[in-house]
Amino acid sequence: MNNTVFIRNAHQLVTLEGGSDAPRVGKQMEELHIIENGSVWIEGRKIAAVGTDAELLEKFSARLHEAEIIDATGKLVTPGFVDPHTHLVHAGTREQEFNMRLQGATYMEIMNAGGGIHSTTKATREATHDQLFEESYDRLNRFLKQGVTTIEAKSGYGLSLEHEIKQLEVAKQLNEYHPIDIVSTFMGAHAVPAEYKQDPDKFVDIVIKEMLPQVAISGLAEFNDVFCERGVFTPEQSKKILEAGKNLGLLPKIHADEIEPYSGAELAASVGAVSADHLLKASDQGIRQMAEAGVIAVLLPGTAFFLMAESANGRKMIDEGVAVALSTDCNPGSSPTVSLPLIMNLGCLKMGMTPAEVLTAVSINAAHAIKRGATIGSIETGKLADINIFNVPTYMHLQYMYGENHIDTVIKNGKKVVSGGSLLWQDTHTLN
Amino acid sequence: MNNTVFIRNAHQLVTLEGGSDAPRVGKQMEELHIIENGSVWIEGRKIAAVGTDAELLEKFSARLHEAEIIDATGKLVTPGFVDPHTHLVHAGTREQEFNMRLQGATYMEIMNAGGGIHSTTKATREATHDQLFEESYDRLNRFLKQGVTTIEAKSGYGLSLEHEIKQLEVAKQLNEYHPIDIVSTFMGAHAVPAEYKQDPDKFVDIVIKEMLPQVAISGLAEFNDVFCERGVFTPEQSKKILEAGKNLGLLPKIHADEIEPYSGAELAASVGAVSADHLLKASDQGIRQMAEAGVIAVLLPGTAFFLMAESANGRKMIDEGVAVALSTDCNPGSSPTVSLPLIMNLGCLKMGMTPAEVLTAVSINAAHAIKRGATIGSIETGKLADINIFNVPTYMHLQYMYGENHIDTVIKNGKKVVSGGSLLWQDTHTLN
Ligand SMILES: [Zn+2]
Ligand SMILES: [Zn+2]
Repeated sequence: MNNTVFIRNAHQLVTLEGGSDAPRVGKQMEELHIIENGSVWIEGRKIAAVGTDAELLEKFSARLHEAEIIDATGKLVTPGFVDPHTHLVHAGTREQEFNMRLQGATYMEIMNAGGGIHSTTKATREATHDQLFEESYDRLNRFLKQGVTTIEAKSGYGLSLEHEIKQLEVAKQLNEYHPIDIVSTFMGAHAVPAEYKQDPDKFVDIVIKEMLPQVAISGLAEFNDVFCERGVFTPEQSKKILEAGKNLGLLPKIHADEIEPYSGAELAASVGAVSADHLLKASDQGIRQMAEAGVIAVLLPGTAFFLMAESANGRKMIDEGVAVALSTDCNPGSSPTVSLPLIMNLGCLKMGMTPAEVLTAVSINAAHAIKRGATIGSIETGKLADINIFNVPTYMHLQYMYGENHIDTVIKNGKKVVSGGSLLWQDTHTLN
Repeated sequence: MNNTVFIRNAHQLVTLEGGSDAPRVGKQMEELHIIENGSVWIEGRKIAAVGTDAELLEKFSARLHEAEIIDATGKLVTPGFVDPHTHLVHAGTREQEFNMRLQGATYMEIMNAGGGIHSTTKATREATHDQLFEESYDRLNRFLKQGVTTIEAKSGYGLSLEHEIKQLEVAKQLNEYHPIDIVSTFMGAHAVPAEYKQDPDKFVDIVIKEMLPQVAISGLAEFNDVFCERGVFTPEQSKKILEAGKNLGLLPKIHADEIEPYSGAELAASVGAVSADHLLKASDQGIRQMAEAGVIAVLLPGTAFFLMAESANGRKMIDEGVAVALSTDCNPGSSPTVSLPLIMNLGCLKMGMTPAEVLTAVSINAAHAIKRGATIGSIETGKLADINIFNVPTYMHLQYMYGENHIDTVIKNGKKVVSGGSLLWQDTHTLN
């Protein structure tokens, strides 16, 4: 028999309806489309009806016995959260490096002690497929408990064809085994690996001529991302890599203007990137060009928080007409968190966004940032039933009662996977 | 039969032993006293033995069958957290005020819309004892899930003898009904109530002549606190109030130098306050005097975070020899959180403290800030068995994996009250 779930009588049901075709920009980011005493009828994996409790009670009066009923009285219901920028699949942690940093160690001291991105590359290369799977699976469980039902995951710690493919294959298998849906991005150009330090152009060549064609053939990724930053990849190298990906059907994304202004936002606009991410130092001109070109800004205030830097100017970007999404940037060096709820708090307190804007930024706009605006990111008939229920009465309380995970229930593809804040399904995966 | 619990084989058992007589200062704040493969034997409400798993296994080999065994393999074990500064007992929330602030509203606009401390005073005065109890009980449940096993709670939203006593009586009853231990502070001088705005000295008189003696007789509070800040209570008024409390046996605490330098730290030193709290604008001289007088600095970086202000300089205070404790400042206006774990993250990222220092600041030093250093705040034979078990291997991971509540198990007075992150005991309280 079909799965039928009836979520009833939320104090606030935030639908975010009406944005399936394009992300919300400017003042639209405040438009949450709230139904008071709202209810949702779910059939199978999808949302079958949305309305007031009175409306749905009348509509389905003859079928109530079919449904598992979830009472949301006094609670807040929102779309499942979407995290559009993570480095999910990696091996190892770098807490010692963090501790050294707090004790005043310099970048070079940390590198000499074996820290930095190359330590994660080393660990990820040395890890087997199954080790990477297990570590990442645990992270997905933690994401799910924060209300994250879809995430983007980048490769980029392999930095060779073999190990990049390994990361992407782990992501594919995680997508099959874990309730969270995973959207994959190839990021061979995440760093210049140590062995090509003397000849970065040679590595760019390898990314373009060896890696990208194989990744495209494999079907393991939808997006192609590059770290455009002084000392990593130049705008010219980045453009080449993104254009090569486009020719193979991989949609461009870009890590842009994180450490210093480097024309990353401008490049994103000129290549027609789906999103430009970080943007702490994006120029005014770059922001205007992103708005005109419809590039989504994926902002990562957790990374600024953890690196003790100033956040990107989310307020200004919204006011300039850029569609803003928010993300954890989950990675072992600069943002070892799964807490999208804290990222929303930081969106308000460090970037001047309102509670309504940050909710839009982790739902419908985040969905568009990974080209899933048509199927997730809002609570509308026909969309996948990815739904969060919170132990607070209004969306404002998620930001007001800061620093806490208020999740009560998570529904993923129509199935209840978190209840009372705890994972429900028994983790019985066995790798073959 | 007696309650017997055996926590076995923690990856790190952080005991913080050896500080029962005085808080840790300076370099001592880094001394965690970690036992690897550490175990704890609990009998009744107290810790009966602490050591390596091999040591305790040998010592209790004949009595293993008596004990409930908790396997902490791979996990971190710490003392239960102590929150030494909260405004736990209050009515109502102020999320609209927060939203207005993020939309750019001024202080006056918020006041005119019915916001500010006076709105909480009004709601708290209007609330019945039972309403206050229920709202606060729910907050205690949320605190417990964050690993907080003892908290200080201030009155100060009543601002009349009747309503101040009501708040303190609610705190007393919460202490009896809820697993968390509550230490009470009278704070009649939290604000000048609207009805005395034209004659604040008259209100000071009422606090000193009417309220303090009655509170002292009632035995409902151990501490006496005052909000020393321009526009609230002057240093002279504050000193009078604190001295009057001292004469009645109430130990002084002080809200000092939060908004501007106002000699609050100096006053704390001169009256021999147990703690001075906030201290964002404390003078260099005030900090030195606090170090000399042994006044504990209770720092509240969540309040700065939520008000979008600069945090107190925790790094400098530690380096100057002040004992630092950390707290949520849980209150509905400037810090509506129960997340002591996030406060620790902020201690590192906004105040330059190390992971070891912030752990000391929420355990043994926080215990001393409420005069409980002899019974809680460390894992030592004879102390109360207040113990947290976390799903991370080392204390550094609590700060490195930021923004997440890593709690697995909480033991309070020897009894398991949180397991798998969820509350264990059924909430069956009935008010009489
Ligand atoms: Zn990234
Ligand atoms: Zn306070």
